[in-house]
Formats: sequence, structure tokens, C-alpha cells
Amino acid sequence: MSETDKEEIDRRHRARTAKRKAVVDKRIAAAQEDKGLLLVLTGNGKGKSSSAFGMVARTLGYGHKAAVFQFIKGKEEVGERAFFARDPNMRWERCGEGFTWETQNRDRDIAAARAGWEKAKEALADPSIHLVVLDELTYLITYRYLSLEEIMPAIEARPPMQHVVITGRGANDVFLEAADTVSAIRDVKHAFRAGVRAQKGIDL
Amino acid sequence: MSETDKEEIDRRHRARTAKRKAVVDKRIAAAQEDKGLLLVLTGNGKGKSSSAFGMVARTLGYGHKAAVFQFIKGKEEVGERAFFARDPNMRWERCGEGFTWETQNRDRDIAAARAGWEKAKEALADPSIHLVVLDELTYLITYRYLSLEEIMPAIEARPPMQHVVITGRGANDVFLEAADTVSAIRDVKHAFRAGVRAQKGIDL
Repeated sequence: MSETDKEEIDRRHRARTAKRKAVVDKRIAAAQEDKGLLLVLTGNGKGKSSSAFGMVARTLGYGHKAAVFQFIKGKEEVGERAFFARDPNMRWERCGEGFTWETQNRDRDIAAARAGWEKAKEALADPSIHLVVLDELTYLITYRYLSLEEIMPAIEARPPMQHVVITGRGANDVFLEAADTVSAIRDVKHAFRAGVRAQKGIDL
Repeated sequence: MSETDKEEIDRRHRARTAKRKAVVDKRIAAAQEDKGLLLVLTGNGKGKSSSAFGMVARTLGYGHKAAVFQFIKGKEEVGERAFFARDPNMRWERCGEGFTWETQNRDRDIAAARAGWEKAKEALADPSIHLVVLDELTYLITYRYLSLEEIMPAIEARPPMQHVVITGRGANDVFLEAADTVSAIRDVKHAFRAGVRAQKGIDL
């Protein structure tokens, strides 16, 4: 590449990036509202709960309190729980006893979901908790273990600066409507289908 | 609801869940291969890096070693870094100096990317590291800071049980082809567009 070509590439790069910076700066200047956000992570892809737990790490890293309520997967996620439990600002509650097709007992699942929700409501009323993760909450609606009427008022009445993350497939439209941010994770390619079993310590 | 109705609902629930359990059990039995996986988290939605960091938490929770290389966002993510840095099994390297439209200096960006990649290659050759996160690696290809010929051999030759996660928008097809698992995160609704600024301690 000649010196002139390189100069031209560099010049174009500067012009393009300066333009992008201007757009981003303008959007940042326009976004001035401070409030606790409701984030919904849905879709059939892997990474929804992991993403929520990454946000927990960020929250704890800033010295804030976080609470996780796991509504369905009770017996898994032991790695994260062990890790986060080291932080005194962390509250981690397992509310379910495994997926419903493991337990095959609807009454027990409903009782576990309801007991878990009562605990989550306490966190949703506590302004000292910066982030509340309602992991796999969507299934409680899908399976009709809880109603939206039981769930939404507590989320809507939470402290103004508290962030809430709801994870799970098939998020109900009411959650999507209420959310500030919705990310849908699509399963493009999955090792499990290719015959690779879930790997301890990563569970991709 | 009459007792008979309830019994009927419970019966159907058991039949349905037993069937799902059989399907899941069969897939688990079929998936017996143990190996380190390559996961690509791409798409324009929020949560890609958070998801990778959630996997870091899981890995550290199991007492394994993890390494994160942040290729682009150098100045952000301080929360996670502060949090994970407490664990002696964690290696966290910031390789970039911010998005390219912040620095507007292509040569400096390339030099930073290349220096970062040299460090990442060390981790990709170290069998004691269970999980290597190559955060925002996709942009190095998109911006032509590094070539796929420089990157892929080190990923392909890594220790057989080592997991690698690549994050970033617009993942090159070569990454998608090589991956065991690909999740695409779609931005369905975003608070930033609605005028809410990025919130410290959560950055949704």
C-alpha cells in the first residue's frame, strides 16, 4: 500500500468515525432520564439467564445490592450461585424445584412458584436493592402457575431507581409492553442438537 | 373448579410433562460428547457481553480459571471488572481504548488490537484456562484491524476442553461456521431510543 493510499484510508476512516461519534453523542445528550429500567430477555436461544447474571456482576461490582429469584431451574446454575454467594450484597433464592417435566406435580410447582413470588415481592419493595432478577418468570405465566394480575402491580410499584430483569422464553405481551428494553435471543446453532452434551462449568 | 375438573387438568399435565421429559432425556442421552465449545453471541441487541460475563461467573463458581479480553470497549464495564478481579482465577485484559469513533485514530486502534490478540493467544494455548471470552472480537474483523487468518488458527488449535466465547455485532460467517453454538440477540425495544440514558451499575 502506498503512502498516499494509506493517507486516503486514514482520512476516510476519520471522516466516517467523526460522523458516527456525532450521532452517538447526540443520542447520549438526548437520553437524560434517570430511572430504574425493566429489561426482558426472551427468545429460544441460550444466554438469557447468563446475561442477567452478568448484570448482577456489574451491579455488585459497583457496590450495589442485587437479588436473584430463580423460578424454574432450581437444581442447576450451582456455579453462579456459588460464585455470587461470596458477595454480602447478593441475595439468591431458588424458588422452583426443577422444570415441571422433571417434577410432574403441578400442585407442588404452583406452591413453589407462589412462595417464591412472595419473596420476590419483598425485594421489589426494598429500595436498597438496585437490581432484581426474576429468572424464568415467563414460565409462571405460560404454565398458569401465577397470573399477570399477581405479578405486574409489584413490578410497577417498585422503587423508582430499581432495575428489574425478567428472563425466559415466550415472554407474555404484557411484559413486553411494560418493558423499557427487550432483547430476544435466537438460537441460531446449538451444540446440544449436534450431539455435544451440556458442559459443566459453562452449560452452553 | 370441581374436583373432577382438577383431576382432569392434573392428569393431562402429567401426561404432557412425562412426554416432554422423555424427549429431553433422550436428547441428553444422545449428547455424550465432551469437548470445549466455541460460542458466538452476536446480533444488535443488548446483553451479549453480559451473557459472556455470566458464563465467567459460572466458570469461576466451579473453581475453574477464566480469561476475558475486551477488544473494543476499554473504558466501560468497570463494574464487572471490579467484581471479577476479586477472584484469583480471573484474568481480565482491556485491549482497546474505546470505540473507534471515540479515538479516531486507526493506527492506534490496530496496534491496540494486535497487542491484545497476542495476549489472547497465550490464553488460547493455556490448558489451565477453562473459559476464554473474546469480547467484541467481531469488530476487529469488521474494521479490518486483524484478519481471520491471524485469529482462527489459535482458536482451532486451543486445548480440547477449553471453551471460547466470541461476542460482538455482525459476526463474520467464518466465526458462525466454526461455532458449536450461535445465539443472536435482537434489539426488540431499547430504553436508549426512548430517551432514557445508560444507567450506571446496569447499562441496559
